[in-house]
Amino acid sequence: MRYEEFTIEGRNAVIEAFRSGKTIDKVFILDGCQDGPIATIKREAKKKDTMIRYVAKERLDQMSETGKHQGVIAYAAAYEYAEVEDLLKLAEERGEAPFLLLLDGIEDPHNLGAVIRTTNLAGAHGVIIPKNRAAGLTASVARTSAGALNYTPVAKVTNLAKTIEELKKRGLWFVCADMDGTQMYQLDLRGPIGLVIGNEGEGVSRLVKEKCDFAASIPMKGEIGSLNASVAAGVLAYEIVRQRLNK
Amino acid sequence: MRYEEFTIEGRNAVIEAFRSGKTIDKVFILDGCQDGPIATIKREAKKKDTMIRYVAKERLDQMSETGKHQGVIAYAAAYEYAEVEDLLKLAEERGEAPFLLLLDGIEDPHNLGAVIRTTNLAGAHGVIIPKNRAAGLTASVARTSAGALNYTPVAKVTNLAKTIEELKKRGLWFVCADMDGTQMYQLDLRGPIGLVIGNEGEGVSRLVKEKCDFAASIPMKGEIGSLNASVAAGVLAYEIVRQRLNK
Repeated sequence: MRYEEFTIEGRNAVIEAFRSGKTIDKVFILDGCQDGPIATIKREAKKKDTMIRYVAKERLDQMSETGKHQGVIAYAAAYEYAEVEDLLKLAEERGEAPFLLLLDGIEDPHNLGAVIRTTNLAGAHGVIIPKNRAAGLTASVARTSAGALNYTPVAKVTNLAKTIEELKKRGLWFVCADMDGTQMYQLDLRGPIGLVIGNEGEGVSRLVKEKCDFAASIPMKGEIGSLNASVAAGVLAYEIVRQRLNK
Repeated sequence: MRYEEFTIEGRNAVIEAFRSGKTIDKVFILDGCQDGPIATIKREAKKKDTMIRYVAKERLDQMSETGKHQGVIAYAAAYEYAEVEDLLKLAEERGEAPFLLLLDGIEDPHNLGAVIRTTNLAGAHGVIIPKNRAAGLTASVARTSAGALNYTPVAKVTNLAKTIEELKKRGLWFVCADMDGTQMYQLDLRGPIGLVIGNEGEGVSRLVKEKCDFAASIPMKGEIGSLNASVAAGVLAYEIVRQRLNK
């Protein structure tokens, strides 16, 4: 297991972190701030015996990594990356066919956060990211995940292509997002599946694409080249949800 | 018509702006930078007789509104907001039933840019945003739209609820994104349609919701409250695309 320190910024993210049972070391609250969400945070902090410190706006601005602290920053002891095995275990516990999202080098923390959020709501069992050339679990990612990071496991692997190979032996099929692929409505996406989304600029890398069983395209009618990576992930993930509901 | 000055930052965004025929006043390029995309920009600038200035990194950083100029910033003469009428005209020209996206107070420029991008690729005819309480067409929006802003008209209206009422008289149906709505797969979304997406925090406002004919929900299985606004817009827009393809 690997640990990384991180801060949680913004009201909803901090409230979610408390409610999910995550260990919070300290909460910094803007002095004088006392609306509803802040009162909730104070109550949660008291329940969990978490230290609260009231600080000036300048202090919060300085501590903030995202620039969007909304008057509250929490320090979590550490963030735990999951193992790929944990993702499969989650699927097994729920009695569902595995449904994983693999991100081949997403660099924008907003996109990573949004994908983790989508993974949670689509009922998928986790996200796999590569160690290199990719955003990690920063405060900005935690914030844009809107709390999903507390529930949805994220595993970090050295070699995405090799991980795909190993998971294929466990019965998973892999489909990658690719403009030149088969239109997604024409594919059967109902089995144990890994959905691979490419990097913002270049899409899925050649090595990873070669490991995939199918390439799925989203129908595109416009003038520009591609959807935002987190939107593409959402649209494809929900096509899988739709097909699974129809089973 | 209303005009607003804006800068275009990043390689793809600048190349797209040139190719779409937009009037570029000036291009600032990082001195010494000469890779492929920059060479393309120089070529485009020469073709259009656009002034190029080579500047130091500090100068670009200072000019940049997004902090992500990638070595190039272009100054466009102005950005033109469309009228709602222009969106309907675009649908008519294409011989299609109108398909519009209405954003009820999206505040994050990343989300607005991503929605404009989705609107373009889903083959929808434009975006309507309210004047207040919403992100406008800033450099950051232009950049995250990945060029879509050059093709997809965006209209700004004083009162979204009133605009919906007027468009209903023109035969449009309105569906809003709402967690408590009917599951989107159960709705018929094939006619002339306006898809209303709410603000990041509060969703669609009561007044606007009351004007809508249907409320559509995205199936949600996770622990957290909602998808990212631009992802939700993408998933719903593509359900409309899917239903229109099946007609």
